[in-house]
Amino acid sequence: MSTEYQTGVPVGHVATPALLLDLDALERNIARMAELASGAGIAYRPHAKSHKSPVIARMQLAAGAAGVCCAKLGEAEVMAAAGIGDILITSPVIGAGKIERLVQTARRAAIAVVADDAGNIDDLARAAQDANVGRDVVIEVVIEVDVGQGRCGVAPGPAAAELAERIAAAPGLRFRGLQGYQGLIQMTPDFAARRDASLDALDRLLETAEQVRGRGIEVAVLTGGGTGTSVIDAARGGLTEIQPGGYIFMDSRYGGIEWDDGNPTPFEKSLTLRATVISRPAANRAILDMGYKAVSSDGGLPVPIEAPGATFGFAGEEHGELTYEGACPLEIGDAVAFWPSHCDTTVNLYDRYVCIRGGAVEAVWEIAARGRVQ
Amino acid sequence: MSTEYQTGVPVGHVATPALLLDLDALERNIARMAELASGAGIAYRPHAKSHKSPVIARMQLAAGAAGVCCAKLGEAEVMAAAGIGDILITSPVIGAGKIERLVQTARRAAIAVVADDAGNIDDLARAAQDANVGRDVVIEVVIEVDVGQGRCGVAPGPAAAELAERIAAAPGLRFRGLQGYQGLIQMTPDFAARRDASLDALDRLLETAEQVRGRGIEVAVLTGGGTGTSVIDAARGGLTEIQPGGYIFMDSRYGGIEWDDGNPTPFEKSLTLRATVISRPAANRAILDMGYKAVSSDGGLPVPIEAPGATFGFAGEEHGELTYEGACPLEIGDAVAFWPSHCDTTVNLYDRYVCIRGGAVEAVWEIAARGRVQ
Repeated sequence: MSTEYQTGVPVGHVATPALLLDLDALERNIARMAELASGAGIAYRPHAKSHKSPVIARMQLAAGAAGVCCAKLGEAEVMAAAGIGDILITSPVIGAGKIERLVQTARRAAIAVVADDAGNIDDLARAAQDANVGRDVVIEVVIEVDVGQGRCGVAPGPAAAELAERIAAAPGLRFRGLQGYQGLIQMTPDFAARRDASLDALDRLLETAEQVRGRGIEVAVLTGGGTGTSVIDAARGGLTEIQPGGYIFMDSRYGGIEWDDGNPTPFEKSLTLRATVISRPAANRAILDMGYKAVSSDGGLPVPIEAPGATFGFAGEEHGELTYEGACPLEIGDAVAFWPSHCDTTVNLYDRYVCIRGGAVEAVWEIAARGRVQ
Repeated sequence: MSTEYQTGVPVGHVATPALLLDLDALERNIARMAELASGAGIAYRPHAKSHKSPVIARMQLAAGAAGVCCAKLGEAEVMAAAGIGDILITSPVIGAGKIERLVQTARRAAIAVVADDAGNIDDLARAAQDANVGRDVVIEVVIEVDVGQGRCGVAPGPAAAELAERIAAAPGLRFRGLQGYQGLIQMTPDFAARRDASLDALDRLLETAEQVRGRGIEVAVLTGGGTGTSVIDAARGGLTEIQPGGYIFMDSRYGGIEWDDGNPTPFEKSLTLRATVISRPAANRAILDMGYKAVSSDGGLPVPIEAPGATFGFAGEEHGELTYEGACPLEIGDAVAFWPSHCDTTVNLYDRYVCIRGGAVEAVWEIAARGRVQ
C-alpha cells in the first residue's frame, strides 16, 4: 500500500492527510531538554504519552533520560515489550485485572506507579505478594500529591505521609517518592507568572516530602513538571526529575510562551500535518481532506502554515475548509501544511509518523502505543 | 493481554476505558433501516465511515444493503480486502498516487467514486486507460452536486451535466449518477423543518438529473441522505439509494430528533463508553480514566448514563471528571457508562469493539479501517 514509504520519497508524494515529523527539529529538541536537565543536575524522564513510540523513547534514553513516563498501563506494556526498562506510570492503576497486568509488566521492566489511595495501595501490595514479585522484582510506588491542579492526588501534608508509611510497610512494594504535577500552568505565556505558580506548587511538594522524611522514610524521587515549567524546575532545584512530554513536538498553543530570558522557547515545532485540496467550490474557499479524524480539535484549530489570509475551519469528520479574505490561490491537488494545536491527541489518531529530513522521507515509525488508553 | 476477551466475560471485567457495542440494539437498528429502504423500494448503501468494520458491513449486506459507502480510499481498501464487493467512495480521490491505488482496488471490487472537477475526471480516465482497466473492470464515477451544504460538489444544473458528458465520453470510466448530501440538516430536531430542507436539497438534485438526461445520458443512481433524513427520503422517493451511517450507533446528539410520526427516532443508541473512577479528590468529584484520547469532543461532551446530578468535564487527554451537585456516591474502582456525543470520531480512537449481549462479552471486532484517513 502506498502509505508505506521508501527512504528518499519526496514529501510531496506522501499520501495525505499525513503526520510528518521533522527529524532535525526532533533531534534538536531532545538534545536541548537533555542539556537543560543535565546542566541542572536533575534527571529527566520524558513522558511517552506524547509520542507513544518506542523509537523516540530510545532516542530520549540515548540522550540521557532516566526512563520514561507513561500515562496508562497499556502504554507501559508497549514500552516494556519494546525493551524500555524503566517506566513510571503517572496515573493510578485501578482494579484487579489491571493490577495483574501491572505485576506481569513488572517482570520485564522496572515499574513504578503512582497512587493516592490506601485501598489501591493495599490492592497493589496484595497482588505483588500473591505473585511473589518480591523475590525477583518489586513494584515501586510514588504518591501523587495534588499541588494545585485539582485532578488526581492526595492533599499535601499528613495524608501523603500516612500513605507513604503504608507503602513502606507493605512487603511487595517499595516507596519511591512523590509526584506533583501542575498541568494548568504549563502554557501560561508570562514567564514570571508561570514561575510563581510553579514555585508555589513545588513548595507544596517539598513540604510534603519533609513530612514523609519526618517519619523516617526516605524520599528518593520528587518527580513532576512539564515542558512549560522545565526551565523553572531546572533553575530552582527541588524536583529530582522532570517529566516533560510535549517539548519534542511543541503544540502551536505554546506559540507565545516566554522563556526565562524573555525570549520565546528554544524548543521547535517538529510536527506538521499535510492536507490536500480536494474541491474548490467557491472563489475564496478550498476543501481539504483533513477533518476531525485527521487532526485533533480539543486544543483548538490547527494553524495553516504559509497560507496568508486563510482561515481554517472543520467541515465535518473527513473534511476541512480554508476560507480566504480574497481569492483562494490554491488548486485541486495542492497541499497545505498545518501546525497541530495539540500534538498528543493528534498523534493518537495516526498509526505512524512519516519522518522527514531534507524534504524527503527518511523513515516511517510506528506509533506503537496509539490508542492504548486501557 | 487482558484487553482481548473470551466470550462470556462479564461487562464489569472489561478493561476501561472501553468501547462497548450492544449487539441486540445494533441488530435491531440494521434491520430497521433495511425495512425502511425496502419498504420504500429504494436501495440502501450504509456509510462505513461510521463503523470502519468489515464485520458490520457484512451484517448490513446480509440485511439487504446494496453495498457500502466509504469516506476515504484507505477505508475502501480495507473493505475491499475483506471481501466487500461494492463500494462508493463519497469524497473525490485526488492525485496520481491515490488514483493508482483506486485503480488497484477496482481490480477486486466494484468501485465507484465521486468527482466534481473536470481535471480530476481526466486524471481518473487516463489512469483507468493506462491500467487497461476497461478490459476487465471499470471505474464508475458519480458526480457530486452541492445541494446546499457548501462543501464539495459542483453547482446544480448545467455544470453537472457537462461533467456527466465528460465522464460518459471517457473510455475508462462509466457514468453512474449523482450524489447530493445535505449534512447540515441531519440533526435538525423538528421533523417539518428537516423535511422541508431535505426536499429542497432533493429538488436541486432531481433538476440536475433532468439536465443530464436531457443530454441523452442515463442517470442510474441518485444517492445521498443520512440517518436524519432517511425517513423523508423513503417517503418522498426521488433518491434511488440512501447513505445512512450513524443509525447503527445513534450519537447522543440525535437525542431530541423527531420522527415522521412525531415520536422520537426508532433507532437506538447501541454504543457506550465505560470508564472507571481512579481518584476521589473531593467530596463532590470523581476522576475517571477517560479523557480526550478515549472519547471524541468535536460533537460535544459525552453524556453520563444513570448518574443523576453529575456533570462530565474533560480533565486533559487522559482524564475526565464527574462533578456532583451534592456528594459524589462513587468509589474508586466504580464504573460509569456514557453515551458518546459523536460516535464516528469516537470509534476512530479505538482498535476494537467489545461486543456485548446479556451483560457479557460475545465477541471482539477489529475496527479494521480505523485511522485510514488517506
